Amino acid sequence: MAVVVMKFGGTSVANIERIANVARHVKREVAAGNKVAVVVSAMAGTTNQLVDWVNEVSPRYDAREYDAIVASGEQITAGLLALTLQTAGLKARSWQGWQIPVETDKAHGAARIAKIDGGRLRERIDQGEVAVVTGFQGIEPEDARIATLGRGGSDTSAVAVAVAIGADVCDIYTDVDGVYTTDPRIVPEARRIPRISYEEMLEMASLGSKVLQTRSVELAMVYGMRLRVLSSFADPESLPAVEVGKLEHIGTTVCSEEDIVETQVVSGIAYAKDEAKVTILKLDDKPGVAARIFGPLAQSAINVDMIVQNITPDGAHTDLTFTVQAAELPRALEVIESIKKDLGNFEVRSSKGVVKVSIIGIGMRSHAGVAAQMFKTLSDKGINILAISTSEIKVSVLIDADYAELAVRALHETYGLDAQADPV
Amino acid sequence: MAVVVMKFGGTSVANIERIANVARHVKREVAAGNKVAVVVSAMAGTTNQLVDWVNEVSPRYDAREYDAIVASGEQITAGLLALTLQTAGLKARSWQGWQIPVETDKAHGAARIAKIDGGRLRERIDQGEVAVVTGFQGIEPEDARIATLGRGGSDTSAVAVAVAIGADVCDIYTDVDGVYTTDPRIVPEARRIPRISYEEMLEMASLGSKVLQTRSVELAMVYGMRLRVLSSFADPESLPAVEVGKLEHIGTTVCSEEDIVETQVVSGIAYAKDEAKVTILKLDDKPGVAARIFGPLAQSAINVDMIVQNITPDGAHTDLTFTVQAAELPRALEVIESIKKDLGNFEVRSSKGVVKVSIIGIGMRSHAGVAAQMFKTLSDKGINILAISTSEIKVSVLIDADYAELAVRALHETYGLDAQADPV
Repeated sequence: MAVVVMKFGGTSVANIERIANVARHVKREVAAGNKVAVVVSAMAGTTNQLVDWVNEVSPRYDAREYDAIVASGEQITAGLLALTLQTAGLKARSWQGWQIPVETDKAHGAARIAKIDGGRLRERIDQGEVAVVTGFQGIEPEDARIATLGRGGSDTSAVAVAVAIGADVCDIYTDVDGVYTTDPRIVPEARRIPRISYEEMLEMASLGSKVLQTRSVELAMVYGMRLRVLSSFADPESLPAVEVGKLEHIGTTVCSEEDIVETQVVSGIAYAKDEAKVTILKLDDKPGVAARIFGPLAQSAINVDMIVQNITPDGAHTDLTFTVQAAELPRALEVIESIKKDLGNFEVRSSKGVVKVSIIGIGMRSHAGVAAQMFKTLSDKGINILAISTSEIKVSVLIDADYAELAVRALHETYGLDAQADPV
Repeated sequence: MAVVVMKFGGTSVANIERIANVARHVKREVAAGNKVAVVVSAMAGTTNQLVDWVNEVSPRYDAREYDAIVASGEQITAGLLALTLQTAGLKARSWQGWQIPVETDKAHGAARIAKIDGGRLRERIDQGEVAVVTGFQGIEPEDARIATLGRGGSDTSAVAVAVAIGADVCDIYTDVDGVYTTDPRIVPEARRIPRISYEEMLEMASLGSKVLQTRSVELAMVYGMRLRVLSSFADPESLPAVEVGKLEHIGTTVCSEEDIVETQVVSGIAYAKDEAKVTILKLDDKPGVAARIFGPLAQSAINVDMIVQNITPDGAHTDLTFTVQAAELPRALEVIESIKKDLGNFEVRSSKGVVKVSIIGIGMRSHAGVAAQMFKTLSDKGINILAISTSEIKVSVLIDADYAELAVRALHETYGLDAQADPV
């Protein structure tokens, strides 16, 4: 007997037929004697309709009202799934964030979960009732108002619920059957990764792999909650039910490093397309000049990622290159324009045609020369590196967008990630 | 300064444009210094979509899940109206039933309001914030689940909120500009009734006039809450804002009898089309025979309205005629069939082609001969009366459906309800 949290996203519950399919996944677990909580998103399309209405009324909306409106999407799915499970002969009830309660902070529209009281939920699950929980939302306790976690927050809800009820595993059902070494649309040889560490998954998630939401992985790591990525499109009866200690033969399991026996030097290659590059030329090379640029950007809540600084040949000036999210480029350029009068007559150039490609692997910690091998691979293909950033378990390079696919393919081969060819 | 509750139904908030129109009605009241709570229904069509989904999943649904799903309709309207009011420069927030809270009993799908704590609502209204309240719903406190009041329950929500916050008036905005002496589609001379007593309105509502929900009128009567029926389609700026003591020049005011100076003998003519007649012929005339028929009908929750019993000429048998809602006729006939073996060989006939026409007026109490005048009017037109029922302030007759409009027109004229012709 295992306690299982199953999370289904918007495409997995897009209509009544898909919801019936979800019910079959749940029924498989209950039939195996498992205790189940299901976390659901809004039916695909519903949230967009609600957001459109909000924007039609008021593009500069009150986030608390936005939350009250869009939270209805999950409320509907949860009720419909509970009814579907009942029709299939299971005991089930829906739980909205405020009913559990899932307490959040006050950052409406992008709230963080502060606390979940899993007591009542666990009690009902122990009685054999499937709990169908609205993802993406909770309640801000002071004013008792609904708060949403922001897009993709349902993954985080699922992990938080799993922690609160002491689940054995949190299974995230998506439209793919696991986490891949890289995007299979670019590299057909990409392989599903059976096991990946939280740290690697965090880097993969934040570097462009959209399978899991970053915060959900952080939360799972902090509480040591075992996560799995599975396909909701698989035939529900073909998947094995959860059995504690036997989780590894399907999907991708995200777990702690110690539980991974054979570590790869590089586990995966991620790429992020929505980057923009800003270069500031002929800055006076004075102390504090970087702070006077990045300070105002931070105050405007613009996330700066990679930074490269060079001294110009004359030694009097410096060139500064950094990247921001492409969507934030116009705002970033506005901020820079506003500080021009303080910092003298520099030149600004920007471009959206750049891509960040990253190699990720916990094995890097104990292997030297991994980054050098990356640079050589790119150089061999004639790809120019515009900027570099590194962490303990990843190396990222910024390159011209035209070379993105070539780079990913070459690196995938270099680090031995290609699926082995069938023996002839 | 007045405290005002304004209620808007589904067609009044059917889309973003209509919601903007509602906001103008609210703004008029706030501009006049009034304190305002607004009660809203779901956008027309939304509830139907949600109910369709529920029925697609499970025609025999769990009413608690049904409630959680359909309650999202008002949640969306309340949020959108709050945003619209904010855009118009007003302070506003949405309140869901469970946030206030509006406590109900456990009869999910058709719950009754048990208690409303109006304290927090009133506090915020006193601070100049418009409260936008979801109609139609509350929370069943024991299991903390959403409960809906059943179709049309938003009128009841509005009156209950008005009582809870100590409002001066509860204004129900609809698609007509008041309560009429009878249906203007049948009698073009029908007049708007400026003032009507709770008792008369109750009879009108339960006898087929669909302007107000019966329970909302009952509740208003019990608490002496003044109700008005106004048109949401009127130009918002053309209506006068609420001023205590000056409510009577628009719409229809529903109030206590003592506040009506000139009482009419008959205030209005109502008719109900969805009636069915059941006649049981040649029943053995034994004591308790009526109880043995109406007992099982009551146990099956079938409402019996008018009853007429005659002795047959031979004195040994009795004929029994009664009416039920047309929708309940098949079930009623089943029940009667099931008791046939107990009560011997009677004959059953039924028909849906009947209509109940009623005259209503508190003046009847002090005027003799009102019913006789009704019977004479119908007789003069050659209309046969199939059954009669009376109360202190109304007389109802059952007639052949073909004569419904003729009867209503003739009675409207008889009791002097026709609008006076313009002087030539």
